[in-house]
Amino acid sequence: MIAKQLEKLRVDIIEAGFAAASAGDHAAVSEVAKNIKNSTVCSLARAIPRDIKAAGEAISYARNSRIHTFIATSPIHMEKKLRMSPNEVISAAVEAVELAQNYTDDVEFSAEDAVRSDLDFLIEIFEAVIKAGAKTLNVPDTVGYSMPSDWGKKISNLIQNTRDGDSVIWSTHCHNDLGMAVANSLAAVSSGVRQVECTINGIGERAGNASLEEIVMGLKVRKDLYNCETRVDTKQILQTSRLISQITGYQVQPNKAIVGANAFAHESGIHQDGVLKHRETYEIMAPQDVGWATNRIVLGKLSGRNAFKQRLEKLGMDVASDEELGILFQKFKELADKKTEIFDEDIQSLVSGKNKHSEYYRLESLSQESKTGGKPTASVTFFRDKEKVIGFGKGNGPVDATVNAIESIVNSKSQLLLFSVNAITDGTQAQGEVTMRLSLKGRVVNGVGSDPDIVVASAKAYLNALNRLESQPRINLQQP
Amino acid sequence: MIAKQLEKLRVDIIEAGFAAASAGDHAAVSEVAKNIKNSTVCSLARAIPRDIKAAGEAISYARNSRIHTFIATSPIHMEKKLRMSPNEVISAAVEAVELAQNYTDDVEFSAEDAVRSDLDFLIEIFEAVIKAGAKTLNVPDTVGYSMPSDWGKKISNLIQNTRDGDSVIWSTHCHNDLGMAVANSLAAVSSGVRQVECTINGIGERAGNASLEEIVMGLKVRKDLYNCETRVDTKQILQTSRLISQITGYQVQPNKAIVGANAFAHESGIHQDGVLKHRETYEIMAPQDVGWATNRIVLGKLSGRNAFKQRLEKLGMDVASDEELGILFQKFKELADKKTEIFDEDIQSLVSGKNKHSEYYRLESLSQESKTGGKPTASVTFFRDKEKVIGFGKGNGPVDATVNAIESIVNSKSQLLLFSVNAITDGTQAQGEVTMRLSLKGRVVNGVGSDPDIVVASAKAYLNALNRLESQPRINLQQP
Repeated sequence: MIAKQLEKLRVDIIEAGFAAASAGDHAAVSEVAKNIKNSTVCSLARAIPRDIKAAGEAISYARNSRIHTFIATSPIHMEKKLRMSPNEVISAAVEAVELAQNYTDDVEFSAEDAVRSDLDFLIEIFEAVIKAGAKTLNVPDTVGYSMPSDWGKKISNLIQNTRDGDSVIWSTHCHNDLGMAVANSLAAVSSGVRQVECTINGIGERAGNASLEEIVMGLKVRKDLYNCETRVDTKQILQTSRLISQITGYQVQPNKAIVGANAFAHESGIHQDGVLKHRETYEIMAPQDVGWATNRIVLGKLSGRNAFKQRLEKLGMDVASDEELGILFQKFKELADKKTEIFDEDIQSLVSGKNKHSEYYRLESLSQESKTGGKPTASVTFFRDKEKVIGFGKGNGPVDATVNAIESIVNSKSQLLLFSVNAITDGTQAQGEVTMRLSLKGRVVNGVGSDPDIVVASAKAYLNALNRLESQPRINLQQP
Repeated sequence: MIAKQLEKLRVDIIEAGFAAASAGDHAAVSEVAKNIKNSTVCSLARAIPRDIKAAGEAISYARNSRIHTFIATSPIHMEKKLRMSPNEVISAAVEAVELAQNYTDDVEFSAEDAVRSDLDFLIEIFEAVIKAGAKTLNVPDTVGYSMPSDWGKKISNLIQNTRDGDSVIWSTHCHNDLGMAVANSLAAVSSGVRQVECTINGIGERAGNASLEEIVMGLKVRKDLYNCETRVDTKQILQTSRLISQITGYQVQPNKAIVGANAFAHESGIHQDGVLKHRETYEIMAPQDVGWATNRIVLGKLSGRNAFKQRLEKLGMDVASDEELGILFQKFKELADKKTEIFDEDIQSLVSGKNKHSEYYRLESLSQESKTGGKPTASVTFFRDKEKVIGFGKGNGPVDATVNAIESIVNSKSQLLLFSVNAITDGTQAQGEVTMRLSLKGRVVNGVGSDPDIVVASAKAYLNALNRLESQPRINLQQP
């Protein structure tokens, strides 16, 4: 689902996973490779033969494929983590790049922790891998330590001083520990970088990576400064952001640039006055450019199948078949029975909630009650494959009781890592969307459920997560 | 509460509000002025006599006071919003700065929308206000349009070319529409700015303002580049971030730099391996520097009053009196009855939840039930001042039913603007923290409630918000 949305967003390259990391990652990269036509599909690989081989196999199904191999080049990483000498590191890099070309012509090399690497050593290793056939050279700020001024200078220096540096594409990959990932990426563009590695909503290790939406809009709004273009369809940005947020359970804060709920909201009287008099007094881009709808109220109980279909299309959401449309329309009608106004967000949630997993566990009905002073109780009726089962549970709150009721039957012994609730629209009559992240024997899955009743949404999310735990590891590709 | 925490964080200046905006804002600035000793207290004011007068009155209680007056200087704002000529704008600015000095020696002037203002005009107006007595000149990127390279150049240019520019403190105020607020602020520091206007968690109009925590840690970690220091006590950063998030109801996303839940979490195997071998391979600052505790599990059911008090102190939280400690310890014990492990976050939430409002409405007990197929119902027993009342309600979910039950008695007719749930610790047995934002006749208040039962937390939050609506406008100072 994520890869297809990224293809629709028109990203150039999808780095789909790290094939050697696990069977699940391997399957994820292969499945993405099989299903994506218009973006290059790439696997990450350490500079060791086993990783390159796994990456090569996984991407073999892709129309356009790439291997991205990396090794650390900073003294601290070479000494403390790799325990290799600088010459050993260069040999490993060259060997990896050569080996990768057995699988694809498109090979990228990264010098991990370039930010703390010696400049002369970087030039040496980059010259060696260019000679070995690397087409893209990536310069990462692995620990998020740089500032735009010094990062821009470092990149310029590398591009100008690496022999045959003008025969490759230079790239950057920035982390956000000091909040500088996007600023550093754009400084690198000014210095000649023509590939930026980034993520939707800036998710990633620790404080995350550079966020795609800010880079794309920065380049677009300030074309006067950068004189560069991306192929990205900016109108797909918001829908992509929502999908990632729903699947990962990581919420986007309201004041996040471009995709936060308040990014285009004017609260102060002075700003509102200005905007009413002349929109551009306080806006440098139009909300519609990145997929925000101007009119949020869209459909109600009486809307027909055709109006629903048109709205789906306007929101940029594909429906594969008439049958699928039928199922979605049915869900829409059920929701409209409970909720007077159906917003775009509700529809987006219906569509992201459509689940292509085999639904081994399915909610039939739920009843719960709580009373201050007593233990909340819940009774959950659900299907385990074809069998109808009823679980009872108590807990600290109705959600806890509901989970215990389900566990009284399933007994998965999984651990709950994350529980997040997102009120999709305003007010308590809003649809609540719950994400639950479960961990079992090293596997981590996310389940999502939405319903105007937050306890029912929680039950759906929990069963959804259990379905993912039931399914084969190759289903990993639908998890972050 | 916010101002006192900011004072503890050791910020130089607290801009407490915009005294002329409303009676509530006026009272807020006055109350902050009365209660804060170690930070300067400032009120914003448009460059019109009425605003300056209101600001001057409100700050009169402060030990150190400032007036910050502003007027727009860009052609688009002067023409479309102010409908004034450039000369009229200069006269208004000079007059405002002169008038402000009747109230305080410390006057700041801002050229709103400086980013889109003509450089020569900016120099002209800045020279005029320096002559009139302004001590701080602020250069705002009101619409978040700049990039660090051009912003740095613009600021250098202004500082170098404004006559007597070296006799004042230069300042910047950046918005985050393209994700550049912090990067632009730091570029301005490199160009000579010595005041940065920023907010906790980067909250603010639209995509927000520059976030204090990122600026402070950027200057600290990269002292080699900036050679500047702040007075901020970085160990108070996390506690401040949490307080603001709880009071405003605006959650901080997990991948937010410095203060996000994952900011120091290492998920990938390669990173974990590196960190285990040598912490600095992937960390440029220590989590403890900004207030993260290393050991999260702290207290349980059997912990005594002294252990609780020590933990409060270690977390940097003051307790005013033995009586207050007693109340908090009681709440802690109640929570420990429901929850096996009490984390730092739970304690922080207990303390931020302590409510100094008169508790006109107080929850006594609640019972609710829901069953798929039927309407959820709730019965809420609460005190209205001294009278015990019981409300019944139905709704789309148990939270909606609970709100309707309370409204069946109170009939406040307020509108619910925001409903957010934050699972403070992991798992469904976690304490849930609910924020509800209500609007009534133009007043907006936030209520917060926490409980392991999410429905009970919602009832507490709703009653808390109603208490704030009941109270006098001067209570505004405890709302964002």
